[in-house]
Amino acid sequence: MTSSQVTIRAAIPGDEAVIFSLIRALAEYEKLTDQVTGSEALLRSHLFGDRPYAEAILAEIDGAVVGFALFFYSYSTFLTKPGIYLEDLFVLPEYRSQGIGKALLIDLAQRAIAQDCGRLEWSVLDWNEPAIGFYRRMGATLLPDWRICRVTGDALGQMALGKRKTL
Amino acid sequence: MTSSQVTIRAAIPGDEAVIFSLIRALAEYEKLTDQVTGSEALLRSHLFGDRPYAEAILAEIDGAVVGFALFFYSYSTFLTKPGIYLEDLFVLPEYRSQGIGKALLIDLAQRAIAQDCGRLEWSVLDWNEPAIGFYRRMGATLLPDWRICRVTGDALGQMALGKRKTL
Repeated sequence: MTSSQVTIRAAIPGDEAVIFSLIRALAEYEKLTDQVTGSEALLRSHLFGDRPYAEAILAEIDGAVVGFALFFYSYSTFLTKPGIYLEDLFVLPEYRSQGIGKALLIDLAQRAIAQDCGRLEWSVLDWNEPAIGFYRRMGATLLPDWRICRVTGDALGQMALGKRKTL
Repeated sequence: MTSSQVTIRAAIPGDEAVIFSLIRALAEYEKLTDQVTGSEALLRSHLFGDRPYAEAILAEIDGAVVGFALFFYSYSTFLTKPGIYLEDLFVLPEYRSQGIGKALLIDLAQRAIAQDCGRLEWSVLDWNEPAIGFYRRMGATLLPDWRICRVTGDALGQMALGKRKTL
C-alpha cells in the first residue's frame, strides 16, 4: 500500500466544525454518543476565544482532515514546568495504520519541547492493550498505581454547597 | 479542641515563596524531595506571568498560610466544557483534621460551578485508602480502569525526534 503524505497543522478558527465532527466520530467509535452533550459554538469559544482552554492539531491527507489531537496545559509543581495533557487522539478508522497517530504524538512532543514542558501525558483504558503497546513503543510509561478521581454533575453542585457528609 | 477559623483566598503575586515552601513540604511528606527540581522564580512566572499555566488558592489560619491547592484547567470534548484539575492539595501536618482540606475542595468546587466547568478531577494513589475514603465522602468517583501514560525526560526528546521504534 502506498501511503499518502500526512501533514500536521494547528487548528484555526473555522476548524471547530471538523473537530466537533471528529469528536462525534470518536464517541461513536467508543459507543458513547449519549455522553456528547457539547456544541460546536462552545468548542469554538474554548479553542479560539479570549480565554482559550484547549488547543488542537489536525492531521490532513490531500487536504482532508483525517484525525486530530486536542490538548491543554497541565502543571508540575515539583518541576515548576507546564506539561501537555492530551485529552483526545483520534484518527478516522479508514486512515489507521499509516502512522497518523504517531505523527500527531510526535508533533505534540515537539510542542512540549519547544515550550519547555516537563512532560506529555494522557490516559488510557487499562484493558486497551493494543493502545498501551503502541504508547509504550513511543516511549510512554504507564503509572500503575494512580487513579483518577472525578466530581461531576449533581455531586459537583453538592460539593460546592459543602453538603456532603465527610464524617 | 477549639478550631480556629480557616480562610481560603486566591494566591497573588508574592505568594510564590510560601507556595514553593509548601510544595517542598509536600515533597518531604511524600519522601520525594529529590524530584523537586523547580524554582520559586519559575513558579511565579507560571502562576502570575503573561501566560499563566496554573492557579493556586491558600488556606490561612490567623493570617498564616497552612495549606494550599494548585490547579489548572482541563477540557472535556464530550461536554465542550472546561474542568478544574487539582494538581496538589496539601495541608501542613500539624493543621490536619480541622476541615482545611475539605474547605479547599469546596472552594474549588465553587470555582468550577462559577466558571461553568463540567468537572473537578485529581489523581490519588490506589493504596491511599484514607484519602480515597475522604474523597468518596466528598462526592468523588474513582475511575477504576483509566491509567495515566507519561512521557518525560529523555523519552520526550526522543519522541520529538521521532526516534522511537513503533513496529
